[in-house]
Amino acid sequence: MTTPLKGACLIGQSGGPTSVINASALGCIEAALASEHITKVYAAENGIRGVLSDRLYIMDLEDPDELSLMKYTPSSAFGTCRYKLKDFIVDDTDYKRILDTFRKYDIRYFLYNGGNDSMDTCSKISSYLNQNNYECRIIGIPKTVDNDLLGTDHCPGYGSAAKFVATSCMEIYKDAKVYGTGSITILEIMGRNAGWLTASSALATYKGLGPDLIYLPEIYFDLADFIADVSRIFEKKGDVLVAVSEGIMDKSNTYISAYFSELSKNTDAFGHSRMGGLAAGLASFIGTKIDTKVRGIEFGLTQRCAAHIASGTDIEEAYAIGRVALKVALDGATDQMVGFERIPGKEYQCRIKMFDLIDVANDEKKIPREWINAAGNGLLPAFIDYALPLIQGETKMLKEDGLPKFAKLKKIMTRDI
Amino acid sequence: MTTPLKGACLIGQSGGPTSVINASALGCIEAALASEHITKVYAAENGIRGVLSDRLYIMDLEDPDELSLMKYTPSSAFGTCRYKLKDFIVDDTDYKRILDTFRKYDIRYFLYNGGNDSMDTCSKISSYLNQNNYECRIIGIPKTVDNDLLGTDHCPGYGSAAKFVATSCMEIYKDAKVYGTGSITILEIMGRNAGWLTASSALATYKGLGPDLIYLPEIYFDLADFIADVSRIFEKKGDVLVAVSEGIMDKSNTYISAYFSELSKNTDAFGHSRMGGLAAGLASFIGTKIDTKVRGIEFGLTQRCAAHIASGTDIEEAYAIGRVALKVALDGATDQMVGFERIPGKEYQCRIKMFDLIDVANDEKKIPREWINAAGNGLLPAFIDYALPLIQGETKMLKEDGLPKFAKLKKIMTRDI
Repeated sequence: MTTPLKGACLIGQSGGPTSVINASALGCIEAALASEHITKVYAAENGIRGVLSDRLYIMDLEDPDELSLMKYTPSSAFGTCRYKLKDFIVDDTDYKRILDTFRKYDIRYFLYNGGNDSMDTCSKISSYLNQNNYECRIIGIPKTVDNDLLGTDHCPGYGSAAKFVATSCMEIYKDAKVYGTGSITILEIMGRNAGWLTASSALATYKGLGPDLIYLPEIYFDLADFIADVSRIFEKKGDVLVAVSEGIMDKSNTYISAYFSELSKNTDAFGHSRMGGLAAGLASFIGTKIDTKVRGIEFGLTQRCAAHIASGTDIEEAYAIGRVALKVALDGATDQMVGFERIPGKEYQCRIKMFDLIDVANDEKKIPREWINAAGNGLLPAFIDYALPLIQGETKMLKEDGLPKFAKLKKIMTRDI
Repeated sequence: MTTPLKGACLIGQSGGPTSVINASALGCIEAALASEHITKVYAAENGIRGVLSDRLYIMDLEDPDELSLMKYTPSSAFGTCRYKLKDFIVDDTDYKRILDTFRKYDIRYFLYNGGNDSMDTCSKISSYLNQNNYECRIIGIPKTVDNDLLGTDHCPGYGSAAKFVATSCMEIYKDAKVYGTGSITILEIMGRNAGWLTASSALATYKGLGPDLIYLPEIYFDLADFIADVSRIFEKKGDVLVAVSEGIMDKSNTYISAYFSELSKNTDAFGHSRMGGLAAGLASFIGTKIDTKVRGIEFGLTQRCAAHIASGTDIEEAYAIGRVALKVALDGATDQMVGFERIPGKEYQCRIKMFDLIDVANDEKKIPREWINAAGNGLLPAFIDYALPLIQGETKMLKEDGLPKFAKLKKIMTRDI
């Protein structure tokens, strides 16, 4: 155990929001505020972009009661970003600015909560600071509804999104077939390269009220097979519920959404294609083949921010891992990500495990092939065993006038005082 | 008070599902099973279609514990329909069949749960049976997320859908603006001719986390005004959240969705246009005018069946009005709809009021103009006062494995035994 460094702590949120990213931030912030070694606690506005532009919120000035509501407040309380740092060998402009900000506020603990792109950011900053002899402990905290981070058993954010998806599938299953006149409903669920969130719809199927067919990016999608699958079930049952991952691709690595939409030609800052319109496209395509009511439904943003139905397990784990991230940093860890390792046994239990950032950055964890059925259109019991514990327990979100009571932070910036 | 008729009771569900239509059915069924005057309790498969085809479930054979779960089970447990009866003067084929079924099972109480089209069905059957001297008490029970039934203060189903919409708006508000890089998000909400459900997004605005602009079918929509509204708020705030009713129309009574989509050319059995694609269409149109991230989101089926966030008030009212419907029928009422009248005062309170079916059938209640702001793009406090009480309280839905525990009925048909 290394002697704790004296200095300030900076927290940042990065990548797509989740229902519980603020629970992790709260864990860090509360632990940092309570530490005798930490002189000041900051949160960056819009993640690394706030560090680059010297826009930091002072957590020491927040009302602890209001802060505590962050545990049940979805999305990123301090704003987030999708910002790709260049290699500092190519261009160190950003890195110099980051170092300036760190020096200015004596940042000795940097905790960054995000997905694999964010772990890449952490890893690069860590190398640069090391080379410049600036001592700072850098810990990544996993977060993504996509659940695609390497190493860790699962990612905070996933359980809550999965609970929304599975619950909504059960409700839509009940709704979609009430007319008794036949219907085909296509649900489009988030997941660009990994199908974890789409697969969570199988939890509804496990309950007897879920999709008949589930298509994941892990398996090449074939339109002819798809029509055959849907037709077979339609003939048997008269109603078909299908879940598709937004990122399903054909054998030539073309997004299926690109078959239907011009939208997917746009890319974001990381070169990821923007998704959308897949459910509607597949629905209207089926409509030309099978004469029945067809419907495409996208869960949209709701699936990642539906804090009202967040998983209690996910909330508590997100909070705990935030606290642990600060603790391990105080104890001397750096250049690592905190994550979970599942303890084998009948009862669900996880222990904290540390992963080197470099091993986590920029790669994605897919669903193991052996958890997917032979036909590639459904999940096997191994997946249910994996995912079911992650959606257990309910949120303790406070309500006011029958609506969520979210944290209202003062958000005082260093430049304001 | 008339002497109660001895005979069987038949319950039917009609029109689009809601989160609480089964709560009303349960109220009827429990009251009917408990009545000494009622010899047998049936539920029609797919509403009036089940009556026409002699497909009735026997409620006396269900497990009461399982039945009781219907209070928290969304959608129509017995199936629903959109079936328009012709005038019996023109064609009495359907009516003869209905009378046959009623005679066969000695149906003396017919309780039909639906919207204005369903009240029309009730009213026509009532007239026909009267003319044919078949004594049967017919009571309509209101149900619609659209909240557009005349007479009654509000409709069961609305409060729950409104709670989902308002809560989701708050969550999406938090999510949509986290990047701090500007965004315009268009939410498309159900409501063909009346904007009640779209207006419920104003409850989120009342909490400071809702749409900046709300467009309702009650006000003619003008694309130029819309762009001007959005641009003004975008320049001021950098992020804009807009709620639009699926049924917004221009001055020539053309659906705005028809500007963007071929889909809306299809019509359903009642001659209603099928909606869809409006949010995406408006979003891409804005994208050509304002250079920022634009997004269209449809709440889709989820908004009407999200029982996991049903309003406690709505559930209890739906259940109570089901019980009352049977009670008033036993007491002699017929050819009427049960509904709510709000008792003036600070505390929310409603009493049951009876409405003649003929006064309710086939017309729609719109949002009063004086509850909408002068510009026609937002709601005034009078609407908040109206809607807020309807979303209070939480569901007591049971969970199993972290997922809803819905009623599993045996559904034994008369023809099965």
